[in-house]
Amino acid sequence: MMSEPIGKTRWAIAEGYIPPSSTGDSREMTSHETACILNASDRDANVSITVFFADDEPAGPYRFTVPARRTRHVRFNDLQDPRPVPKGTDFASVIESDVPIVVQHTRLDSRQSELALMTTVAFCD
Amino acid sequence: MMSEPIGKTRWAIAEGYIPPSSTGDSREMTSHETACILNASDRDANVSITVFFADDEPAGPYRFTVPARRTRHVRFNDLQDPRPVPKGTDFASVIESDVPIVVQHTRLDSRQSELALMTTVAFCD
Amino acid sequence: MMSEPIGKTRWAIAEGYIPPSSTGDSREMTSHETACILNASDRDANVSITVFFADDEPAGPYRFTVPARRTRHVRFNDLQDPRPVPKGTDFASVIESDVPIVVQHTRLDSRQSELALMTTVAFCD
Amino acid sequence: MMSEPIGKTRWAIAEGYIPPSSTGDSREMTSHETACILNASDRDANVSITVFFADDEPAGPYRFTVPARRTRHVRFNDLQDPRPVPKGTDFASVIESDVPIVVQHTRLDSRQSELALMTTVAFCD
Repeated sequence: MMSEPIGKTRWAIAEGYIPPSSTGDSREMTSHETACILNASDRDANVSITVFFADDEPAGPYRFTVPARRTRHVRFNDLQDPRPVPKGTDFASVIESDVPIVVQHTRLDSRQSELALMTTVAFCD
Repeated sequence: MMSEPIGKTRWAIAEGYIPPSSTGDSREMTSHETACILNASDRDANVSITVFFADDEPAGPYRFTVPARRTRHVRFNDLQDPRPVPKGTDFASVIESDVPIVVQHTRLDSRQSELALMTTVAFCD
Repeated sequence: MMSEPIGKTRWAIAEGYIPPSSTGDSREMTSHETACILNASDRDANVSITVFFADDEPAGPYRFTVPARRTRHVRFNDLQDPRPVPKGTDFASVIESDVPIVVQHTRLDSRQSELALMTTVAFCD
Repeated sequence: MMSEPIGKTRWAIAEGYIPPSSTGDSREMTSHETACILNASDRDANVSITVFFADDEPAGPYRFTVPARRTRHVRFNDLQDPRPVPKGTDFASVIESDVPIVVQHTRLDSRQSELALMTTVAFCD
């Protein structure tokens, strides 16, 4: 699609926190922390996430695939293997891929009746 | 205006989602997802956006012009040709231009009675 | 203070919009669009902002100083000379300085009873 | 863990403001301004923060350690030595480390009944 695929193969998100509660009923309105991943290349991306904590050894890697020319919005709430990411706990993450990807971090917080949103492109070097 | 124009010719926004509903009546308060584009150069910019999905082939390119020394805040809600961007669906986008531009991503979410905002400079490499 | 000053001399903010109304009475709670500027160097920074619009020629430059080892949070609402930045209108901006600075873009929106916030580091190349 | 540690040794956050009030009772819901720091390396990071103001000489350095393979979400509210960071005052900060780290800036504002959130990766050069 493009001359060379856009993105980098290593990213970091220094902020992570899954609110322990929500006011919404639906999946759409449940508080969540998301790593939005774009793989604009023509090859499937094998991605692994490592999660860092304040007082414990890192968890993971959590492995999954983002197919060629697809996006995947990964909720940290959904990471289960090797173990769920705890709620109400500070964490950070490193995302690695075998093809260039773009990573953006978003949180929807619905602990109170009105939702709050935040987003940033993740760090890459 | 400047010695050399500020910006890059290829950008990516890994997060995209048009909320399916709004509480506001006006265009100003309707939930929207925006790519804010600045063309600070002295040449018109021919811009094309390709939209990526989780389970479908990419859509686009959506083509438009940002005149020299102008900004254009493009709402994904308004992209119609070749086909509208679906609401309530995860997407991502790549923005390409023939002159350097700067791209910032903003969402206003008015699904609930109080609005929520988020923004980030898009990724470029 | 530091071996070499942190920052860049040219920045862009592609998103700009001063909400036309506020619910708060105080300056603190009035809707505002801010360019937060850090000058961590040992020399005063002479800064100029040029504002770009969708349908008009750019305005400015707006000129001011950020003293050495100081920060200044500039509200676009307060820019008056050569002319005020209109409310309720899309704009973008380029910030130039004669010494390295760091620029971060923040909006507080209090059009509705609860405030909304967004921020991003500006673009530099 | 990784071939070479991800991150940089010098970062800046140009926006800083600790809201002077909160509506929440808990530490979780108290208005706060945070520097989220990830040290994904195998060596402890000795970190120092310098805080810049609009009308006063910089404060600090505030010194602390982020252990190897850990994250630490530092609240500016909690910085006490050499002196507390004042509330309701504009500030900015520079974060320096002896090993590569990643820094992300987040604010939770609970001055009104519903919280507002914002985040961005800090600036590094």
